[in-house]
Amino acid sequence: MKAAYFDGSKILVTHDYPDPKQGETLVKVRLAGICGTDLEMIQGYASYTGVLGHEFVGEVVKSSNRNLVGKRVVGEINAGCGRCQMCTTGLERHCTERTVLGIYKRDGAFAQYLSLPEKNLHVIPDSVSDEQAVFVEPLAAAFEIEEQLKIDINSKIAILGDGRLAQLIARVLGINHKNMACFGRHQNKLQLLSKLGVQTKIGILPEDEHTFDVVIEATGSESGFLDTMKLAKPRGIVVLKSTIASKNKLDLTPAIVNEITFVGSRCGPFRPAIQALASGVIFVDDLIDSVYPLDRLNDALDAARDSEKLKVLLKP
Amino acid sequence: MKAAYFDGSKILVTHDYPDPKQGETLVKVRLAGICGTDLEMIQGYASYTGVLGHEFVGEVVKSSNRNLVGKRVVGEINAGCGRCQMCTTGLERHCTERTVLGIYKRDGAFAQYLSLPEKNLHVIPDSVSDEQAVFVEPLAAAFEIEEQLKIDINSKIAILGDGRLAQLIARVLGINHKNMACFGRHQNKLQLLSKLGVQTKIGILPEDEHTFDVVIEATGSESGFLDTMKLAKPRGIVVLKSTIASKNKLDLTPAIVNEITFVGSRCGPFRPAIQALASGVIFVDDLIDSVYPLDRLNDALDAARDSEKLKVLLKP
Ligand SMILES: [Zn+2]
Ligand SMILES: [Zn+2]
Repeated sequence: MKAAYFDGSKILVTHDYPDPKQGETLVKVRLAGICGTDLEMIQGYASYTGVLGHEFVGEVVKSSNRNLVGKRVVGEINAGCGRCQMCTTGLERHCTERTVLGIYKRDGAFAQYLSLPEKNLHVIPDSVSDEQAVFVEPLAAAFEIEEQLKIDINSKIAILGDGRLAQLIARVLGINHKNMACFGRHQNKLQLLSKLGVQTKIGILPEDEHTFDVVIEATGSESGFLDTMKLAKPRGIVVLKSTIASKNKLDLTPAIVNEITFVGSRCGPFRPAIQALASGVIFVDDLIDSVYPLDRLNDALDAARDSEKLKVLLKP
Repeated sequence: MKAAYFDGSKILVTHDYPDPKQGETLVKVRLAGICGTDLEMIQGYASYTGVLGHEFVGEVVKSSNRNLVGKRVVGEINAGCGRCQMCTTGLERHCTERTVLGIYKRDGAFAQYLSLPEKNLHVIPDSVSDEQAVFVEPLAAAFEIEEQLKIDINSKIAILGDGRLAQLIARVLGINHKNMACFGRHQNKLQLLSKLGVQTKIGILPEDEHTFDVVIEATGSESGFLDTMKLAKPRGIVVLKSTIASKNKLDLTPAIVNEITFVGSRCGPFRPAIQALASGVIFVDDLIDSVYPLDRLNDALDAARDSEKLKVLLKP
């Protein structure tokens, strides 16, 4: 089959990649999304080799569950051992033996076919388009915030970043919260947030400092991390949605003096994400920049790297 | 009066330091404790100049409250503006206009006299000795953990460090929790913890990794901070009791992947600390190493810097 294989240093589309492993549900990929993690992994982060891609919508072509065959599905990316304490308490995504689609020991979605355990798959209702369905995985990550944290309805919330993840977080938190500001750098992206009723800001002013109850870091940058400590109130909460690796010395003193709580936050629940798209509560169509055939992978990656652009999709 | 003044580069005992400012309650210091923060400040951290010291017990010699005069007291170290949202909701210690005894814009306890607002002072019952009373401030910081965090009775708790702060934290958490391990470096200090029924460990073994529900960082070192991410379970809680400034690049990726919650934690409530000492629920006498007269400040500081020693006290 056709697949985009990453050998640890470069990514190449090959036409004779082996088919996914037997014994799991086989899915024909209809559309896949490129995410920031993919771009980081191509730079060698995480020492993964294999087929990249973990955001997808596809059609089941083979499964031990006959009812699934022919259905459009999205898939949870963590496949646990099924036996440990995490797996048996619904936290399979924290199983220490897990494989992760397109990220860790499991070929991903930038391919014509992929396989996953049946229980990882969720059927997508007809009212959700393929283009929308690709957003289920990152949207679930945005829903994870309120899964981990009870945020008071009157809380003042800051989101750092205006990219793909920040956009989804603003949409999800916007369901329950009205007092939100987004700190970004790109006029076109901030405009999309303005339309949602989110206050948008370029740069932190003195009057913004230490005034937010909840601050969400969605830039994945060291400066974003430092800004969280500037924006959060004493005893405030900072949610880290992107991985942070500082290039410099890092001083956490302000966070301890101000008794800040940092919450690491990652993959989330698929069901509310699918429901929100199906009911139209969350609209994502304005976030799609372009769709490329898998054979034009390099053009697609270049587009995804362009900080002016939002979501870039691949059609295998 | 006699006072140990830090000019930003060196600390010297002078005999003609001006008396504390009028308008506040005046306290004759009976005993003061040297804490890790003092030692860091002498190295130039925080750019403070003035009299150092924030752990003390003293006797009120002058106050607008007649009932206080002659009483033995300890004092909360943060003096807020009294008007802001923090001050009016009992979180004076987070007031942005605050001064802090011996730490920020307010002369401290390494002196014959100090002054504080009357409301900062707490009378010490006769059953608590001077030596014990000096521990109220750091003990309150240990009580702050359960003030911020509800820790399940069955939680598996790790404490990183075996010094003064770690010792107090083990004693305070030991009131409600039995499943505790302490990771330290000094046989004599770990022995004190063993006597309390705390499991003691030198170094992290593979079987310790990702097994603790709650991890308390009390070393103030970069390696201690990195160890918290090794010890905490996925979705576990890390409490940062000491300020952390990394000397190297810092990668927070494990904390985000494992959805760790970090809680910065600082000064705490005095009342439960005083009660615990008065009732004998918490015993601190074994933590005292030595008492020096203020004139022998340099010997006292040398002793406090010795990592084999625990609490060093000053008698002005
Ligand atoms: Zn498992
Ligand atoms: Zn105030």
